[in-house]
Amino acid sequence: MFQTPQDAEDAYYDAVEACDLEQMMAVWENSPEAHCLLPMQPMLQGPRALRSAWSGLLKEALRVEVTVHSLQWIEQGELAIHLVEEAVTVAAQPNQPYPPIYATNIYRKGAGGWRLLVHLNAPAPPPPGAAPPGMPGG
Amino acid sequence: MFQTPQDAEDAYYDAVEACDLEQMMAVWENSPEAHCLLPMQPMLQGPRALRSAWSGLLKEALRVEVTVHSLQWIEQGELAIHLVEEAVTVAAQPNQPYPPIYATNIYRKGAGGWRLLVHLNAPAPPPPGAAPPGMPGG
Repeated sequence: MFQTPQDAEDAYYDAVEACDLEQMMAVWENSPEAHCLLPMQPMLQGPRALRSAWSGLLKEALRVEVTVHSLQWIEQGELAIHLVEEAVTVAAQPNQPYPPIYATNIYRKGAGGWRLLVHLNAPAPPPPGAAPPGMPGG
Repeated sequence: MFQTPQDAEDAYYDAVEACDLEQMMAVWENSPEAHCLLPMQPMLQGPRALRSAWSGLLKEALRVEVTVHSLQWIEQGELAIHLVEEAVTVAAQPNQPYPPIYATNIYRKGAGGWRLLVHLNAPAPPPPGAAPPGMPGG
């Protein structure tokens, strides 16, 4: 049970790094309104689609480290919106940085505390002059 | 003044199609929390950055038509989150459809009615087997 949106967010990124599907699913709100968009992937909506997709992703043993740089928190009532920039490092390729990713995480407070309602991310633009590099995960 | 989030959304897409900067700025909440992410562009934050970027985009006379397919509305208190798929047609190239774009629009109710707080979008994946096509605007 997450007492704050930040607690839920910490658990989300911990689950990504630990490839822990059950922790990941515990972070998500258990409702058809939950949705997730990863770069260049189809939109995932609802607990069944989320579990299926994250099961596949986390089985690949991503072994990534995600450093989260906070851009903005907007909290209002029972919703909290967090805009961040994610910097991803892949364990097998520590010297090959991936381009940063913008992510928006929306949390909602329910009877069971704060849960993740929406995770959306999109590639940030490459630095000026750089060729567009490949994205992690295709 | 927009009485509903849908009114604000209609005005947003009308402003894109009409290349009307003043209507566009009237849709946005006039606060540093307003932010906008267009595909592969830097994040825009606050009224000054929004006006500057949209001024450039709308001066190019985009002449696009945007068909909005609603995926989900989440309304809670003074926030409304709308997840949509945008299909864009460029007037000069009516037979060359662009790949769809996922967009998330977040509206907030203030003293002046509902205004757009966040617009984020990200390319949807290409259909299976298709080569990744170019994105509009870059």
